[in-house]
Amino acid sequence: MPTDSLPKQVEIWEVAPRDGFQAEETWIPTETKLEIIRELASTGLKSMEITSFVHPKAIPQLKDADEVVSQAGDLNLKLRALVPNVRGAERAINVGIKKLKLMLSATDSHSLSNANATARDAQQKLWPIADLAAKHGVSVGGSVSVAFGCPYEGKVPLERIAAILTRYQEMDVHEVSLADTTGMANPVQVSQMLRYLNQEFPEMRFSLHLHNTRGMALANAVAALQEGVLDFDSSIAGLGGCPYAPGASGNIASEDLVHAFHEMGVDTGANLERLIEVAKNVRDRIGHDGGSYMLQAGPNSALHQKPVSQSKLG
Amino acid sequence: MPTDSLPKQVEIWEVAPRDGFQAEETWIPTETKLEIIRELASTGLKSMEITSFVHPKAIPQLKDADEVVSQAGDLNLKLRALVPNVRGAERAINVGIKKLKLMLSATDSHSLSNANATARDAQQKLWPIADLAAKHGVSVGGSVSVAFGCPYEGKVPLERIAAILTRYQEMDVHEVSLADTTGMANPVQVSQMLRYLNQEFPEMRFSLHLHNTRGMALANAVAALQEGVLDFDSSIAGLGGCPYAPGASGNIASEDLVHAFHEMGVDTGANLERLIEVAKNVRDRIGHDGGSYMLQAGPNSALHQKPVSQSKLG
Repeated sequence: MPTDSLPKQVEIWEVAPRDGFQAEETWIPTETKLEIIRELASTGLKSMEITSFVHPKAIPQLKDADEVVSQAGDLNLKLRALVPNVRGAERAINVGIKKLKLMLSATDSHSLSNANATARDAQQKLWPIADLAAKHGVSVGGSVSVAFGCPYEGKVPLERIAAILTRYQEMDVHEVSLADTTGMANPVQVSQMLRYLNQEFPEMRFSLHLHNTRGMALANAVAALQEGVLDFDSSIAGLGGCPYAPGASGNIASEDLVHAFHEMGVDTGANLERLIEVAKNVRDRIGHDGGSYMLQAGPNSALHQKPVSQSKLG
Repeated sequence: MPTDSLPKQVEIWEVAPRDGFQAEETWIPTETKLEIIRELASTGLKSMEITSFVHPKAIPQLKDADEVVSQAGDLNLKLRALVPNVRGAERAINVGIKKLKLMLSATDSHSLSNANATARDAQQKLWPIADLAAKHGVSVGGSVSVAFGCPYEGKVPLERIAAILTRYQEMDVHEVSLADTTGMANPVQVSQMLRYLNQEFPEMRFSLHLHNTRGMALANAVAALQEGVLDFDSSIAGLGGCPYAPGASGNIASEDLVHAFHEMGVDTGANLERLIEVAKNVRDRIGHDGGSYMLQAGPNSALHQKPVSQSKLG
C-alpha cells in the first residue's frame, strides 16, 4: 500500500448532530446543539449531516431540526439532512437545506424495525421525495443501512445491494453512502463490495458510513480508500451508539479518522488539534463519548519528555 | 484486496501471560496465572509467550516465571519466554524453554527508559545470550520495540530498524517481531516498512506485535497480512496497557484479532466462541479488560431475533 496509490484528499462528513444526537436519551437544548455545531465548523471540517427531519414523536431529540438549521445557516458549512418521508423533505427544503439524504435498509428485518415497512415498500415511498427535490432543485443522496451485515439476518448478498442501487439510479440519485450500521463489515468484504459496485455502477459515487462496534472501522476505511472512496462519515467523540450492542463503540470518531488519515498522508482539511479540543468539549457537554482513541491516548504527535536514565524492565 | 491474495492461515502468539500480566500492579497468584494459561490452551491457540525471566525486583509480577513454566510444561503449547539478560536465559533454559525472545528498542530514549542502556549498548549485551542458546540448541527470536514510533522521539527512520536487524542477523537470529509498543503505527507505514525490510532481509521472518492505543491495530494487521506476514502477537481481553497513555487500550485483543481474521477468511486455529468465553473469565479474574470489542459487542455471528413490525425512526 504505497502512499502514492491512496487519494491525497478526502471529504469528511461530520454526522454527530444527526447520528450522534439521535442516540442521546437526555434532551440536548437547541442552544447546546448549536454551540457544538459552531465549534465543529471551527475545525476546518466543511461538510455536515446536521439533523433528521423525522416526526418529533419518533425521535424527540431532533424535534428542533427546523430551528437548528435556520440558526446554523450562516456557517461556512455544506449541510445535508436526513429525510424519512415527504413531510420531512418539505420541512428541510423550507428551511433552506440544499442536500437531502434518503435511507433504505438492505434487509426486510432491519427495514421493518427501522422504517416499519419492508425494503421494497420503503423504496416505493421515496419516489415523491425525489420528485419534490427535483422540483426545488435540491440534490439528493442515498444510503443503504446494514449494507455489510444485518443484526437480524447476518451477511447481505451483493445482489441485494445492487437491487437497491438500481432503484436509487432510477430516482436519479447518484451518490450513495454504504452504511455499516452495526459494525459488521470487514476489510476484505469492503474491498470486494466496492470493486463489484464500481464495476456495475460506474456512474455512482460511493461513500462509507462506518461504526466501530467490533474494532474494524479504521481497517474498513483504509480498504475503502484503496478502492478510491473519497467521502467518509464520522462523528465527533464517536457519538452515536449501536442500539443492538448497548455500551459498545459508536460511529468512528472524527478525531480518530482524521488522525489516521493524516498519519497516512491523506488530507481531510481539518485541524486535528482543534478537532480533539472540540471532541473534549462535546464529551463534557454530553457527559460521555462513544469510544474515542484520541480522547484516551492523544495523537502520535504528543511526545513525552525524553528520559535520562532509569531502569524499568531490568 | 481479494481474499485469495491473503494468507489462508496465520499463527497467533498469545502474549497476555507476559505482556498482559506484567502490566498488572496487583499480584496475580501463580495458580491463577496457570488457570488462565490452561484456559488459553483450550482455545485452540498453539503458541504462547508465557513469561519474562526478568529480575524479580524489576517486575515482581513475573517473579514466579520458573514455577509457571515448570507447571505449564505438559500443555500442548509452543512456548517462548522473554529474556533480558544471560541470567534470565539460564533460568529459562533450565526450566525447559525451547525458544527465547530478545528485545531491543529502536531508539536510545526508549532503550534508556526500558533497559537502562543506549540501543547500541543493549545490543552488545545480547551476544552472550545468543551464544548460550546456541550451546543448548535453544532457538532465539528477536524483537524491535517502538519500531513504528517512539513516545519520546516520534517516527523512527527505516535505517535505524535495518541496523538493528543487521545485528540480529549477525547473532544468527532470523525471526524478528516488529513491535508497535505504544500504538503509533499506521497501515501505510506498516506496508512500506515491510516492503523495505522484506527486500533488504529476504531471509528474515517478520511478525507483528500491535497495540491498539490509537485504534489502528486491526488496520495495521491487515496491512501486514497484505505484505505476507504470518505471525501476530495478541493478548486475551486486550490485557497489557501502555505506560505512556494510562487508561488507553492495550495489546490488540486476541478475540478481536481472531474474529477479524476469521471474518476475512484467514484461519487462526482458534475457536472464537471459546476464546471469548476465556476472555470473559480472564476479565473477571483480573478485574478489568484492556479494551476488547468482543467483550462489549460480541461477534458478528451473534444475531438478534427478527422483528415483526415496529416503528423506530418513523
